[in-house]
Amino acid sequence: MGVVRVPANRYWGAQTQRSLQNFKIGGEKMPMEILRALAIVKHAAATVNQDLGKLDAPRAAAIRAAALEVIEGKLDENFPLVVWQTGSGTQTNMNVNEVISNRAIEIMGGVVGSKSPVHPNDHVNMSQSSNDTFPTAMSVATAYEVQEGLMPALRVLRDDLDAKSEAWSGIVKIGRTHLMDAVPITLGQEFGGYAQHVRNSLLRAKASMVHLTELAIGGTAVGTGINSHPEYAERMARQISKLTGLPFVSAPNKFESLAAHDAQTALSGMLKTMALSLLKISNDVRMLGSGPRAGLGELSLPANEPGSSIMPGKVNPTQCEAMMMVCAQVVGNDMGVAMGGAAGSHFELNVAKPLIAYNNLQSIKLLSEASVSFAENCVRGIEPNIERIDELMRSSLMLVTALNPHIGYDNAAKIAKKAHAEGSTLKEAGVRLGLLTSEQFDEWVRPELMTAPEVPPTSKL
Amino acid sequence: MGVVRVPANRYWGAQTQRSLQNFKIGGEKMPMEILRALAIVKHAAATVNQDLGKLDAPRAAAIRAAALEVIEGKLDENFPLVVWQTGSGTQTNMNVNEVISNRAIEIMGGVVGSKSPVHPNDHVNMSQSSNDTFPTAMSVATAYEVQEGLMPALRVLRDDLDAKSEAWSGIVKIGRTHLMDAVPITLGQEFGGYAQHVRNSLLRAKASMVHLTELAIGGTAVGTGINSHPEYAERMARQISKLTGLPFVSAPNKFESLAAHDAQTALSGMLKTMALSLLKISNDVRMLGSGPRAGLGELSLPANEPGSSIMPGKVNPTQCEAMMMVCAQVVGNDMGVAMGGAAGSHFELNVAKPLIAYNNLQSIKLLSEASVSFAENCVRGIEPNIERIDELMRSSLMLVTALNPHIGYDNAAKIAKKAHAEGSTLKEAGVRLGLLTSEQFDEWVRPELMTAPEVPPTSKL
Amino acid sequence: MGVVRVPANRYWGAQTQRSLQNFKIGGEKMPMEILRALAIVKHAAATVNQDLGKLDAPRAAAIRAAALEVIEGKLDENFPLVVWQTGSGTQTNMNVNEVISNRAIEIMGGVVGSKSPVHPNDHVNMSQSSNDTFPTAMSVATAYEVQEGLMPALRVLRDDLDAKSEAWSGIVKIGRTHLMDAVPITLGQEFGGYAQHVRNSLLRAKASMVHLTELAIGGTAVGTGINSHPEYAERMARQISKLTGLPFVSAPNKFESLAAHDAQTALSGMLKTMALSLLKISNDVRMLGSGPRAGLGELSLPANEPGSSIMPGKVNPTQCEAMMMVCAQVVGNDMGVAMGGAAGSHFELNVAKPLIAYNNLQSIKLLSEASVSFAENCVRGIEPNIERIDELMRSSLMLVTALNPHIGYDNAAKIAKKAHAEGSTLKEAGVRLGLLTSEQFDEWVRPELMTAPEVPPTSKL
Amino acid sequence: MGVVRVPANRYWGAQTQRSLQNFKIGGEKMPMEILRALAIVKHAAATVNQDLGKLDAPRAAAIRAAALEVIEGKLDENFPLVVWQTGSGTQTNMNVNEVISNRAIEIMGGVVGSKSPVHPNDHVNMSQSSNDTFPTAMSVATAYEVQEGLMPALRVLRDDLDAKSEAWSGIVKIGRTHLMDAVPITLGQEFGGYAQHVRNSLLRAKASMVHLTELAIGGTAVGTGINSHPEYAERMARQISKLTGLPFVSAPNKFESLAAHDAQTALSGMLKTMALSLLKISNDVRMLGSGPRAGLGELSLPANEPGSSIMPGKVNPTQCEAMMMVCAQVVGNDMGVAMGGAAGSHFELNVAKPLIAYNNLQSIKLLSEASVSFAENCVRGIEPNIERIDELMRSSLMLVTALNPHIGYDNAAKIAKKAHAEGSTLKEAGVRLGLLTSEQFDEWVRPELMTAPEVPPTSKL
Repeated sequence: MGVVRVPANRYWGAQTQRSLQNFKIGGEKMPMEILRALAIVKHAAATVNQDLGKLDAPRAAAIRAAALEVIEGKLDENFPLVVWQTGSGTQTNMNVNEVISNRAIEIMGGVVGSKSPVHPNDHVNMSQSSNDTFPTAMSVATAYEVQEGLMPALRVLRDDLDAKSEAWSGIVKIGRTHLMDAVPITLGQEFGGYAQHVRNSLLRAKASMVHLTELAIGGTAVGTGINSHPEYAERMARQISKLTGLPFVSAPNKFESLAAHDAQTALSGMLKTMALSLLKISNDVRMLGSGPRAGLGELSLPANEPGSSIMPGKVNPTQCEAMMMVCAQVVGNDMGVAMGGAAGSHFELNVAKPLIAYNNLQSIKLLSEASVSFAENCVRGIEPNIERIDELMRSSLMLVTALNPHIGYDNAAKIAKKAHAEGSTLKEAGVRLGLLTSEQFDEWVRPELMTAPEVPPTSKL
Repeated sequence: MGVVRVPANRYWGAQTQRSLQNFKIGGEKMPMEILRALAIVKHAAATVNQDLGKLDAPRAAAIRAAALEVIEGKLDENFPLVVWQTGSGTQTNMNVNEVISNRAIEIMGGVVGSKSPVHPNDHVNMSQSSNDTFPTAMSVATAYEVQEGLMPALRVLRDDLDAKSEAWSGIVKIGRTHLMDAVPITLGQEFGGYAQHVRNSLLRAKASMVHLTELAIGGTAVGTGINSHPEYAERMARQISKLTGLPFVSAPNKFESLAAHDAQTALSGMLKTMALSLLKISNDVRMLGSGPRAGLGELSLPANEPGSSIMPGKVNPTQCEAMMMVCAQVVGNDMGVAMGGAAGSHFELNVAKPLIAYNNLQSIKLLSEASVSFAENCVRGIEPNIERIDELMRSSLMLVTALNPHIGYDNAAKIAKKAHAEGSTLKEAGVRLGLLTSEQFDEWVRPELMTAPEVPPTSKL
Repeated sequence: MGVVRVPANRYWGAQTQRSLQNFKIGGEKMPMEILRALAIVKHAAATVNQDLGKLDAPRAAAIRAAALEVIEGKLDENFPLVVWQTGSGTQTNMNVNEVISNRAIEIMGGVVGSKSPVHPNDHVNMSQSSNDTFPTAMSVATAYEVQEGLMPALRVLRDDLDAKSEAWSGIVKIGRTHLMDAVPITLGQEFGGYAQHVRNSLLRAKASMVHLTELAIGGTAVGTGINSHPEYAERMARQISKLTGLPFVSAPNKFESLAAHDAQTALSGMLKTMALSLLKISNDVRMLGSGPRAGLGELSLPANEPGSSIMPGKVNPTQCEAMMMVCAQVVGNDMGVAMGGAAGSHFELNVAKPLIAYNNLQSIKLLSEASVSFAENCVRGIEPNIERIDELMRSSLMLVTALNPHIGYDNAAKIAKKAHAEGSTLKEAGVRLGLLTSEQFDEWVRPELMTAPEVPPTSKL
Repeated sequence: MGVVRVPANRYWGAQTQRSLQNFKIGGEKMPMEILRALAIVKHAAATVNQDLGKLDAPRAAAIRAAALEVIEGKLDENFPLVVWQTGSGTQTNMNVNEVISNRAIEIMGGVVGSKSPVHPNDHVNMSQSSNDTFPTAMSVATAYEVQEGLMPALRVLRDDLDAKSEAWSGIVKIGRTHLMDAVPITLGQEFGGYAQHVRNSLLRAKASMVHLTELAIGGTAVGTGINSHPEYAERMARQISKLTGLPFVSAPNKFESLAAHDAQTALSGMLKTMALSLLKISNDVRMLGSGPRAGLGELSLPANEPGSSIMPGKVNPTQCEAMMMVCAQVVGNDMGVAMGGAAGSHFELNVAKPLIAYNNLQSIKLLSEASVSFAENCVRGIEPNIERIDELMRSSLMLVTALNPHIGYDNAAKIAKKAHAEGSTLKEAGVRLGLLTSEQFDEWVRPELMTAPEVPPTSKL
């Protein structure tokens, strides 16, 4: 394949360099989370191979030391490859092999580039194939980010929403269905619903860990485990668990783990569900905060920055918009992952691995950071406009619903329509229609009692 | 392949029957638009084969007579197959061949099922393969529905929006950006923007016809035209144009036409763009009509039906919601088409043809009928709430923007912030800040002049 | 809203009729699964309302009798409404109320259309709103179809794949990664991987039931439970469980249940993951069965029908293609559901309910029936072409991988490249390069030992 | 809003800094193409404002000088903001205003940060709003990248495919439909089909320019053109055309241009169609190149790099895989854009602008660079394996199709089935069945004549 020239100040080798030259596509680098996860795999493999008597102690130690530097981010500039490379991620696995090999050689006093005493394939990649190593790194990286990035972020948002829900449990406001006036609800209930979305998101995130923690490692080239020790797969899962603190297990069927990425597809679908929840919350917040004078105006959102380069004094729901765009991106990423599953899964190997990893890790990161940003820069500072809330609630024709059990749906409808047509209050319309007395109206229509099931059921038809 | 029993009261034959038995999947029938388009192809082929001396006049006439009955919808119950069959649509092509053959045999006095004197393959399907016939039917069906269904429907909606735009050109209202109060706009301008979306949709629909009218016919099995006459492709395009009144041409490259369906994918992308336009319009309409008392309330939408089974007197923007769901479906259909393109296009034949046809024809029909329904049952009956519109507009702090050219952005911002903080008017805040006089305010802030570029430019910094 | 004329031979009333007239959009009817589920809700509500002393026994009995007829499919022709209606499904809820009311009136000897003695809103819809009733029907219908339709179907496919996996455990064949020749695998392992996909699909289907079985009922109009008894929600969940045999519970937060449909979105994402698994399996099967002479030709798929209207004797992988189109449709449906979640979830009510229900029920049905069709009409009849499989396997240059532990990656690569360049066997190339003896080659390269981890590890570098 | 501290070595100001602090979300920076396009707008505005007598010459010149530095990439490190900010892109517009203002101040000898003599809003942003400036930058950036990036890249690929098509016009090979053996085709025809896909992609790219070149500028805050000169919009379009060499025009309706992004959505749909074309081509290439011994093996793809870290000598179709992942990403991006259109378009302003710009610019760049990479590193180096191609073609049972016009479809089918069942040749089977003589077979079945319509039509039934 000819000679390639490699930069002297980098640890990478010919295979990395070749990829750099052959794939001048886009600027999206392989995510560092994947590179660190690959280094974790190399670290664990050195230990397991040593334990199984396949690798001597000095080489194993040197590999571990070099891998640790990658994990710690000390060698970040040695991973220049883009996502748009071979679909198995082989070139990035080779990149990691080369960098760890060369750094380990250096540690052992050898000549960088000599492949001795630590060979990138024979030693660093021992008992591995890109085909099981890369998906293992995908599992490790995504499981870790879900556990340590996404879930804590969601908890922050949940807590902020819960706090508002509790604080505002006594604020009765108009409910809205079809964007139209409906029966009352408390602002606390509304935010409690939002908190429940996040609570369920946490449950879903946790459930996604079941398959994310099943590791492909030990499948080697095609899932059969060729060139690996019979105990290798299990030992690797244990060792990686030890290094990460996460409960990884050896996948029950390695063919499934290499040939497609259902766990990642399912993760992606879960992230999309989460995105739609967060979109709903942020949409509601920006609509409830719309105005200040010609919108709904029930909430005041924090004024974090000027909103317009031409309209002075304008303040916009920018955190909601950023969240909206993040959610849209996550939905798009989900489709990209689906396409990578559909077009990349043939026979023993899915070859859209870098794409899938890139999209899922981006989605996790965006959802995590947007949740925290939204919680801290928006939710936490929201103030209810009590007067406005009360005024809108009291004007609502839908308070008429409280009359259903007393005078029936059809009569109640007559009152509402009359009040709407005449611009009058419900009480006025009801009395004028002779369907109830003023006193009955006051007894039956009590917004503060309309935000819960009837206690006790006061009447029936 | 064994014996199959075929119903005596139907014209279909063994191949249709086999498909019925082997594909008990879902209930979505092959769209009648495809079946009629296939009959048009059979009709044209009979003529062209006769003209080229390959088919005798009596058989050709009988085939045309039978095909005409299919086109006229007289034999609809003879096409029982579902979408989820072979990906080339071969079984549906066979279904049409069998039905036309048997009906033609009947016309000629033969025995139904005898394949004589009109053989389904040798005569009805003469010079054809499913592989060029079915995509031709896709082109004919979609081009026809775009031209005769979608475009007239969009014109109805455009005209209704234009009428409102004109009627309301004098109604100055508050503009909204980021859902927040912004500078004024006329209601006519707002609806003029909506009309422009539809106008552009019409341009896009027309542009999509360029590739939709390129017919695959003449490519036969793999695009080479095997078993067809050299003049056949061109003659078929002319004949089909004659039958349909649409300007079909023979595709410049038949391999491209059979092996993938870019023209359909592009159509699908165009329909998605259109759906997003219509979604925007219907979203705005339902939000502007929200209330009646606790929403924006600028518009009153027609009250077509009771809106709630529990809240009496409630009226909802149901046409907007139906439109929203239609648009969502079209976006989903677009993704289905993309998947069919991605997973079905290998070598000389795309094998997701029924799926692609089904989704695109559904999208066209839904957009067409929803546009008319939305125009007739919603747009046409919308009434502006003039008082409410005026009140909201006059309260807006963003009228301050008119001061930018006079006192600069920073000073204008001070006024807006002060008015917001104190709940005062802009004029009060500006005078109190000493930045302008009451008279200057009245001269400079004139909402009716803020809905167009400055004429003449009254000042500058 | 004016007078409407209703057909005399139907049980529906004015509200249904109005919807019929106002929503002439598409032909997609509200799924019967939803209508039956709504009738289950009405049946349960009659019982619970009676138990709570809100409804007298005769009316309750008549409502239950009428609801049962709907459940049993006896009144199917009374539900003419399309999906593209109001986004809350109110019109369909009204349709069910009207039909059950009229049929119950008939049972009780009253005058159809008189609303007496059984009023559609006051009695049939008692303690309900469309806003909690319709989502409850969505939960009931989808949970039921997943449990009783999808999971049994997947078990059929899993069992067929397992049977093949077991039967073919001794057939060593070439593995393929990147579509290129790789190290050996058994055909049994390959189909075992497919079975694992389906096994995981079953786990995912089961997991989706957690949130699908949380019922919105009791939330009534906006989630607060207005006009319902405090015990109503829990009693309804128990009663619906009793009627369906599924473990429904009352949703922990009704605001979340009405305002968005995360459980349905998550279901949709799960169905998409499942679709991608099934797509992968069916893609592999059609590619392994490609040929018969110029393809891979490892498998012979059952010849169920003639494959071409122009190429005699052609047989195609039609079941795989139908499955592929089904999977593409499911991915599209998932996007439609996502759009419905994104564009329909505002404040207290998501208004894309019919769309979401329609898409998810279609996806479930298509995946269920396509799985059974694929299992019965394809997988079950697949035969391996033993000779072809063996010939391809033995010719593979990738058997060289077995040499890695003995002579190292770089030397093994030299052998493979030489053999490829010269068209020779690996053994010839290896011996000629002096890297091993013929005897060593025969000892080290044993395909049948290459389909599992090394036992015992025979050497190391 | 409090005090913010800005780095001394950067030109940005408080508004940029605030965004940096408030939007710690993801690492995706606003694309430099947008920043350069914004600088083009500022440059043009300085000229137009000067020409209209609104801005004095020294300020205008300084603004142009500073803008030019941005365009030339000299100030790249001054644009630190991420995509996930306010949905109008206001913060990035402010960033550009601040940087140009400060650099212009510096050029004029003023104090950086003093806003004098060049104010970021009053002078740099004069006659502009983010709301028209940012969408104008989107149009300029995408139109430019389509014209100067994508179209030249597609031409490279088209030319390489055309060259192969011509070179291989005499190589007769087996066609494949449904992945199964079909009638012959030339390799040149196959690649000619691929070239046609790219040719059509070029047509589609060109067509997308129609709406991409309609500029929003002049609409200012809400589309009305408030605070701009009546001639401003037209002059800006002319000036931007002059600066870019592209034929920009002033959008016919500014409300449409600000409130939604149909032109971008349509562009996105077009890019998706293109991606599906390229996916089809790259899929075919990797499948035709599969093997080398156990695949189709008709083509040899260039061996650019080692393909496996465990299987020595393995070479993979890596360029095809990179292309596949790029195409998947583009489909995902399209869905992200659709979501941004759906969830971001309310009233007078779409607020998903940065998302839409980011996704479309990424898609354009990926498709451009992947096309060139695929052309140069794959297509150009493909070699046909003539012997293999010939062997597969001659073995095909589908050559029987040539017999249809002579002995009819049913008889031809008998021959094919017999040959398949017995593993014999078609000629042997045909003679044995007594349907033709050996001489007739040789006369009628001539693969080289089967790759075009019949010339002359030799017989008919």
